[in-house]
Amino acid sequence: MRRKSFAGMHCSIARTLEVVGEWWTILVLREAFRGARRFEDFEQGLGIATNILSSRLAKLVGHGVLERVPAPGSRRHEYRLTAKGRDLFPVLVALLQWGDRWMAGPGGPPVRITDRATGRDIAPLVLRDADGRPLAANEVRAVAGPGATDETRRRYPAREAADG
Amino acid sequence: MRRKSFAGMHCSIARTLEVVGEWWTILVLREAFRGARRFEDFEQGLGIATNILSSRLAKLVGHGVLERVPAPGSRRHEYRLTAKGRDLFPVLVALLQWGDRWMAGPGGPPVRITDRATGRDIAPLVLRDADGRPLAANEVRAVAGPGATDETRRRYPAREAADG
Repeated sequence: MRRKSFAGMHCSIARTLEVVGEWWTILVLREAFRGARRFEDFEQGLGIATNILSSRLAKLVGHGVLERVPAPGSRRHEYRLTAKGRDLFPVLVALLQWGDRWMAGPGGPPVRITDRATGRDIAPLVLRDADGRPLAANEVRAVAGPGATDETRRRYPAREAADG
Repeated sequence: MRRKSFAGMHCSIARTLEVVGEWWTILVLREAFRGARRFEDFEQGLGIATNILSSRLAKLVGHGVLERVPAPGSRRHEYRLTAKGRDLFPVLVALLQWGDRWMAGPGGPPVRITDRATGRDIAPLVLRDADGRPLAANEVRAVAGPGATDETRRRYPAREAADG
């Protein structure tokens, strides 16, 4: 079955899923953030079939999330996160922190993300307003942005703040 | 082809993907945060096949991310985000903000997330240390947590801060 592409959707979430939403892709990126560079690093870290890994790496290179470069002192190549790829770190941390809170076993989180300088756990990701004040999900509203189509404007109308 | 389950992996990212990682699931949640409650709301918002939508909703109910409750004043039922579901909002915002930065067309982001009280855009999600100081991806380190297995401890050894 051909899976419907999200690329044509006028939504930044859908467009991001088009890049990272395939099964395995986020875990490939997890390995990249953990320091994996060579094909074998990813393979060993994931226990993934080589054809699936090849396909996921090629797609991430195609989207500019990873770059394929010659490995230093070798005739092989390796994969490195680009700036676009490194900018996905909050996505991975958001997934990890939710899993820690809601899916961890009785022993607690398997992995902690710590500040290298102090060794202390990082803070939970929270939404904040422009002044840094934390915001709950029901304190925010999606409204049509500058790139909205007519359809998007219909779905996300700009409304008076007082109607919330 | 039977897809490998991530549920047995000792990783909070993998466990979260087991709940929300299937194609369409995040967009089903996007609609729920937008206010969709009835099956038809989701269907119209997504243009999704009914059998896939039914499967995704049932799985989210099974995981306690949505709850299926009687619709007020009707013999029908509707789907509402639970606390566990509402807590996924940072995941959606992280995906959205990355898409806004890296995948938006020339017109800019299709949708803005704004503070209801002020109408201003929310701030980008950033990693912070326990005192609120922003941290870049290369300033943090994953280390074995309290729920780590021997395998996880091997992969994420606790190291001296000085080696970073």
